[in-house]
Amino acid sequence: MKFVRFEAGGATAYGIVEGDTVKEISGPGYESYSETGKTHSLESVKLLAPVLPKKMLAMALNYGSHLHDAPAPERPEPFFKIHTSLAGPGDVIRIPTDSEKVDAESELVVVIGKTATGVSVADAMDHVFGYTCGNDVSARDWQAGDTSWWRAKSSDTFSPIGPWVVTDIDPSNLDIEGRINGKASQNCNTSEMIHDIPHTIAFISNYVTLEPGDCIFTGTSGTAGQIRAGDTVEVEISGVGTLINTCA
Amino acid sequence: MKFVRFEAGGATAYGIVEGDTVKEISGPGYESYSETGKTHSLESVKLLAPVLPKKMLAMALNYGSHLHDAPAPERPEPFFKIHTSLAGPGDVIRIPTDSEKVDAESELVVVIGKTATGVSVADAMDHVFGYTCGNDVSARDWQAGDTSWWRAKSSDTFSPIGPWVVTDIDPSNLDIEGRINGKASQNCNTSEMIHDIPHTIAFISNYVTLEPGDCIFTGTSGTAGQIRAGDTVEVEISGVGTLINTCA
Repeated sequence: MKFVRFEAGGATAYGIVEGDTVKEISGPGYESYSETGKTHSLESVKLLAPVLPKKMLAMALNYGSHLHDAPAPERPEPFFKIHTSLAGPGDVIRIPTDSEKVDAESELVVVIGKTATGVSVADAMDHVFGYTCGNDVSARDWQAGDTSWWRAKSSDTFSPIGPWVVTDIDPSNLDIEGRINGKASQNCNTSEMIHDIPHTIAFISNYVTLEPGDCIFTGTSGTAGQIRAGDTVEVEISGVGTLINTCA
Repeated sequence: MKFVRFEAGGATAYGIVEGDTVKEISGPGYESYSETGKTHSLESVKLLAPVLPKKMLAMALNYGSHLHDAPAPERPEPFFKIHTSLAGPGDVIRIPTDSEKVDAESELVVVIGKTATGVSVADAMDHVFGYTCGNDVSARDWQAGDTSWWRAKSSDTFSPIGPWVVTDIDPSNLDIEGRINGKASQNCNTSEMIHDIPHTIAFISNYVTLEPGDCIFTGTSGTAGQIRAGDTVEVEISGVGTLINTCA
């Protein structure tokens, strides 16, 4: 299933995409949902960030190709991305004028569906709602110079996700391609993650409670590409879709 | 005014404390409120964390006495504390069994009252709702060993605030005392902050939008005291009140 959040006729709603049609549903539908009976053509609606997470975490150092000279981490290494940095498909990523280098990072994003506190690796995947594409926009000079990565990773518009949440895929073997102005900037497969999704969820939930709608960006590969005002940036994940944003 | 959130007769509500009485109000009341007409004795209610912040930030390195050998930061140095780590007055701080050293940090907490994006230093204080006491509980081994301070500062129960939000005080000259089992562990005055509240709010809001209810922990002084299961920990701020928690 493809879950979306969208705007149509001035109102915001959740829905399910079937072919070229969006069937409106009640609520976010993490556990269950009912159809309202209204439908829209996919073309006619503006897609929004498909979920409204209360919190987001992202994984540092989770692909060997992104480690450069750093050693592989012994445990998952999350950091927070804050909800006010959320953006949707088609939204503008605002490049701050006072940062010298802002990069795009193409990532698979896990959306939590059930509250998770102290869950085991074996039970972790029962707490997943689905998967979407994410761009962990990163201001490198702030990441290097600040005590924490707060503005480096969570300035307003620095967390685009979308275009939808896909619920029925195996996330362990998906191709991810990042593109800037149509040219490939990153390529990897989710099988290359150092800490896989079940271990990551279990580890986080041992300390920090995960709630329905929370998002986990699972890490980026290789060397991320710099983005500048005017650029178009894409994150394509096989079996999920393509998230497209422009920069201003 | 003293704003509280409380539980009485199985229901949760907001209120205003006058003497020994809590007058119930509608909503959190950041911008305005109306009294419901119901009153309770202060003694009869269970006080909760006085606000439910969507996000919390805390300031690293904001008192000279806490810098030890580090240089004073040129700009405010925030990091995120996540809302699932919130705790209220009287709540238990859970000391993780797998951390070697957990400290209590006594801090003045600013509660935002109006959405703040790109506000000036001159306008910053117009966006403040009030002030409360906070304990920035910190697992030192995780703070030193992890890439980010996610679990070091935001494990569940690591962000107690309360007992109420005081709206009509000048925050620039308040005494803060931290106590562990009745013995003073920290002493400072808010006048010793390196980056004051208006500069901190303005700086943060230039990158990350602040929303009503958001909390900013303004930093800790000296050397924080270690807390262990069984300890009682207090944060007393002149003109605000005393936040008391136990550890388990």
